[in-house]
Amino acid sequence: MDVLRIPSVSTDPEHKADMVRQAEWIRARLERAGAPVADIVPTAGHPLVIGRWNVNDDKPTVLIYGHYDVQPADPLELWETPPFEPSIRDGYVYARGSADMKANLVATIQAVEALAAQYGQPPVNLIFLYEGEEEVGSSNLYAYLAEHGGDVACDIVISADSGFPAVDVPGFFVALKGMCGCQIDIKTGETDLHSGGYGAAVPNANQVLAQLAATFHDDEGRVAIEGFYDRVAELTESDRAEIVQASAVQQDVIAESGAYALWGEPGYSPAERIYGRPTLDINGMWGGFTGEGAKTVTPCEAHIKITCRLVPDQDPMEILELIEAHVRKNLSPGVQASFQRKQGIAYPYTIPRDNWALQRAASVISDLYAASPVFFRVGGSVPVTSEFKRYLDVETVSLGFFQPGTPIHAPNEWFRLNDLPMAQRGYAAVIEALGE
Amino acid sequence: MDVLRIPSVSTDPEHKADMVRQAEWIRARLERAGAPVADIVPTAGHPLVIGRWNVNDDKPTVLIYGHYDVQPADPLELWETPPFEPSIRDGYVYARGSADMKANLVATIQAVEALAAQYGQPPVNLIFLYEGEEEVGSSNLYAYLAEHGGDVACDIVISADSGFPAVDVPGFFVALKGMCGCQIDIKTGETDLHSGGYGAAVPNANQVLAQLAATFHDDEGRVAIEGFYDRVAELTESDRAEIVQASAVQQDVIAESGAYALWGEPGYSPAERIYGRPTLDINGMWGGFTGEGAKTVTPCEAHIKITCRLVPDQDPMEILELIEAHVRKNLSPGVQASFQRKQGIAYPYTIPRDNWALQRAASVISDLYAASPVFFRVGGSVPVTSEFKRYLDVETVSLGFFQPGTPIHAPNEWFRLNDLPMAQRGYAAVIEALGE
Repeated sequence: MDVLRIPSVSTDPEHKADMVRQAEWIRARLERAGAPVADIVPTAGHPLVIGRWNVNDDKPTVLIYGHYDVQPADPLELWETPPFEPSIRDGYVYARGSADMKANLVATIQAVEALAAQYGQPPVNLIFLYEGEEEVGSSNLYAYLAEHGGDVACDIVISADSGFPAVDVPGFFVALKGMCGCQIDIKTGETDLHSGGYGAAVPNANQVLAQLAATFHDDEGRVAIEGFYDRVAELTESDRAEIVQASAVQQDVIAESGAYALWGEPGYSPAERIYGRPTLDINGMWGGFTGEGAKTVTPCEAHIKITCRLVPDQDPMEILELIEAHVRKNLSPGVQASFQRKQGIAYPYTIPRDNWALQRAASVISDLYAASPVFFRVGGSVPVTSEFKRYLDVETVSLGFFQPGTPIHAPNEWFRLNDLPMAQRGYAAVIEALGE
Repeated sequence: MDVLRIPSVSTDPEHKADMVRQAEWIRARLERAGAPVADIVPTAGHPLVIGRWNVNDDKPTVLIYGHYDVQPADPLELWETPPFEPSIRDGYVYARGSADMKANLVATIQAVEALAAQYGQPPVNLIFLYEGEEEVGSSNLYAYLAEHGGDVACDIVISADSGFPAVDVPGFFVALKGMCGCQIDIKTGETDLHSGGYGAAVPNANQVLAQLAATFHDDEGRVAIEGFYDRVAELTESDRAEIVQASAVQQDVIAESGAYALWGEPGYSPAERIYGRPTLDINGMWGGFTGEGAKTVTPCEAHIKITCRLVPDQDPMEILELIEAHVRKNLSPGVQASFQRKQGIAYPYTIPRDNWALQRAASVISDLYAASPVFFRVGGSVPVTSEFKRYLDVETVSLGFFQPGTPIHAPNEWFRLNDLPMAQRGYAAVIEALGE
């Protein structure tokens, strides 16, 4: 429970000392579990905690990934009990960071501790890599991987930053979308103008932007950026079957969306669109007078923020270039556009379903729960998986034990107490299987 | 000068007493000029000042229109001398309301006073109608015209709320655009959604709005609302000639616009577009996340504010209905749109160029300045002219004497002192001509 008392809010500079305390807590816990190496590794931001436990050069090396930072707890008034004073009620512990992801993190250490107690040492070589900046983009982890990737070379990554696809249904994240985005600023002149005096004879930046934004999709819902789909790996029959299977147990995201209608790329089911097809979203758009009442202005500036969710084998940097080329091609003469690329791109990631580690992990989780684990995809982006692929050239098995429904970035986040020993047993079983 | 010392700012409730003082000042000035009737007429807002001077039932009745309210003086720090302490420098008087339009207003009274002194009484029957709410929409004047129009029945209106089309070039406003507008609120669902979890499968309100807004114009710049041009009186050869003639002396609005390019309806010159063709402007547009950085949201709401500038014989109410029908027709299923109509519509107005009063006025102004006055149009809207047409069924001759370049709604507004006696002589000559 102590781990839940430290407010390791990575985004808030006031918690800088708490981040150090939290890192030290984990380092000490690793040491207590028996890890021969357990270090705090400073970065430009919050420190990494890196542990090592080499047992046998003939055994595979498994890197266990997690993060010890948490989302801010605001709005505080909506918490039934204080976010950093863990409260147990009816078999659940309520605390910020309980599900995302301190319970899983501690369970990985407990699992190794238990294996070492049972066999004298772990059954594989282990690297523990816990970062403190997942909630703020992981840029210093990536910098570390870029510079010191060789120090954490491994055969497989187990990411504990995950949860169950449905209540009491275990599963593995097998595909995550990539992401890129930009803000486009349109300028048609040096100053906003009176619509009566000028509106008929000069471009209106809002109109230019609307007409431009309307070219991003075709009438049916396909992204109409030239080249956007060129590298997309078409969904196979087995991909479609996997999505159907996962959808059968996953929450009905559409029903709970509050949307009045479905929409999207023709030829694909809503689940296929969300889990298997790339998208372009207009996250924000603004220009001219947006206050109460009316102002008869012909604005000279308008702005749009877009992000794309990407699938294999799209390249986020290339997609940004395609978008910029599309915009330049579609601009009228005398209209200026500038581009600000969003920080924190993500490459799409998918683990081959026949990956040795995934198969062994699935097998032991199946035994543990007496139920086949679900291979499920998320529409969101967890860039660390693709970054491990990029820098370490290894696949990542994503396995975590929080139940869906816990409000991981909202008040009253919880973790079910019974899931903690199951998580420990689950991670131990997987690590043991990887050593066989 | 006293008239310029009263801060008659109609929009500011703190100046309510000043508005009454200003109205009383004008009433007293009318009385001093000899008007047999000079009344303060209360309204739901600031009072009207109404004077009457009937001389002979065989003579035409001329209504002189003006307004005694002024724009706020902010930003005060940009005034070289205080806005309500008139300062004379190099032949100009600097004060808020000097050009717009206290000098003209006083000149109309002086003109009548001079005519009465010369001939014993004015050469026509006169109604003086001065309002205190022109800068805030004139709604109480319109209410008065709707209810008591018969009390101010007349043969012609002279509006003194005008200026010269070019420095030292006299002229008459002959056409003013109408206006209507609305805000359209698009809703695609009950809540903003995570673009990864939902973006591929539900409508994005920003995208819906952009695609909708892009249908307002065709690719070449015509308004593409069905029926929009149906009632537009096509520009005749003489209209085009008039616009060319006026453009030759008017300021080059395009050159000073700061716009990087021209734009607009094909088949018409920029001046023809501004002065003779209707337009639709997107004044404001917004939806989703518009702050710093990125937020991967699929928004459920987006908003747009539009106004149209209209020409004869378009009807603003009908145009609003056409826009709403266009929007409804172009919405995808499951997208909701609501409409808020802008307050203060304006009908387009144009005075027939062969109107007897306009012709006589042009003739005497030509003599006074030894130069042909210019018939010029404005792209903006001065609704009072069309309201006189609507409620009193009379035409309005717009004649005023401020020079272009004076910042009528900005700091350091000025009126050239030499223009005051010219204004008085000009109004007197026109009134005299109308009595012949």
